[in-house]
Amino acid sequence: MTRTIHFFFDFISPYGYLASTQVERIAAAHGRDVVWRPFLLGITVMKVMGLKPLMQTPLKSDYVRLDKPRMASLLGVPLASPDMRSASSVAAARAYYWTLDRDRLQAIALAKRLLHRLWVEGGEISNAESVAEEAAHVGIDRGELLAALGSQAVKDRLRDEVDGCIALGVFGSPFFIADDQPIWGVDRLWMLERWLRYGHWNRIDGG
Amino acid sequence: MTRTIHFFFDFISPYGYLASTQVERIAAAHGRDVVWRPFLLGITVMKVMGLKPLMQTPLKSDYVRLDKPRMASLLGVPLASPDMRSASSVAAARAYYWTLDRDRLQAIALAKRLLHRLWVEGGEISNAESVAEEAAHVGIDRGELLAALGSQAVKDRLRDEVDGCIALGVFGSPFFIADDQPIWGVDRLWMLERWLRYGHWNRIDGG
Repeated sequence: MTRTIHFFFDFISPYGYLASTQVERIAAAHGRDVVWRPFLLGITVMKVMGLKPLMQTPLKSDYVRLDKPRMASLLGVPLASPDMRSASSVAAARAYYWTLDRDRLQAIALAKRLLHRLWVEGGEISNAESVAEEAAHVGIDRGELLAALGSQAVKDRLRDEVDGCIALGVFGSPFFIADDQPIWGVDRLWMLERWLRYGHWNRIDGG
Repeated sequence: MTRTIHFFFDFISPYGYLASTQVERIAAAHGRDVVWRPFLLGITVMKVMGLKPLMQTPLKSDYVRLDKPRMASLLGVPLASPDMRSASSVAAARAYYWTLDRDRLQAIALAKRLLHRLWVEGGEISNAESVAEEAAHVGIDRGELLAALGSQAVKDRLRDEVDGCIALGVFGSPFFIADDQPIWGVDRLWMLERWLRYGHWNRIDGG
């Protein structure tokens, strides 16, 4: 994992989207590549950790409602408020890994389009058809993708990826691993930048 | 709440301790006072939010174990690793508010001693005797405090404070409220500083 930044996110996480708008700039400033690794909060947070969804957690849901727009403002990026009650990122994440096994840059382009559709346009990405629509925009064959999304191999591919995230200790979105350092949260981009700059956690006066 | 910073923390929270080492410096730099408001995570997180204790949450507990020392290092402060399995901050918080109603500065001095005893010395603060020992060091009558800690009035005082925290939306430790802005986490001290400096969340290039 040495020269890359592993960027873990769930497509349905607004904080994951916010981080996606920053991670490449930060990585490039330090000569790093970004490995985009979508995963499913429904598995990590709900099944493994045994927690409720964020927006069903008293007190924290109110905080997040207030916090999302101010974080977007701080980063200078747009943030829509789509209805997330029945949102799913399973099709999006499967499509990402299926594409990744064919073309890495195409997969990243697809990820960005899906994040944009949901979090900038406030559109739908939960069903396979809307995912395929975005895929077509980056040159992926719509029919081929739709056929793949129903296959066991593609389901297993995502399952293995999510298992891999859990094995690495990833739980929230966004989550970064740079070298051996796990860093959770868009509110810790400063820590990611600091690690990339200094490679240690000793106090730096004035910084 | 205009010219003060409300600083909410639980004595048994390492991140609350870490924030306590920074909040007065940050406040002073912006001409603000700090109102120290200890509360009980056992009520907010466990009873109101229905979540497990942090260190009993899979994945997150491993992350926090790794994160605490690096956060202490970043801030340049010591951090002990006391055994927290049966730790309670009820006596400490009751003693704080009982003292606060008599002498604000004495109460803050007591809070700092208790945090130091637990998080720097790795000592015990769960029982009334150890709290009274620290209280004596800041000029509080040991016997008078011990008698007060058992009274219904002092129990009610803390209960009311915790209810007040919940009404304000406070859930984690540390938690800050500056003007109308709730800010959760020692990893968001940068946001607290930013708010105090600019008073808005618009993007500032280079900052």
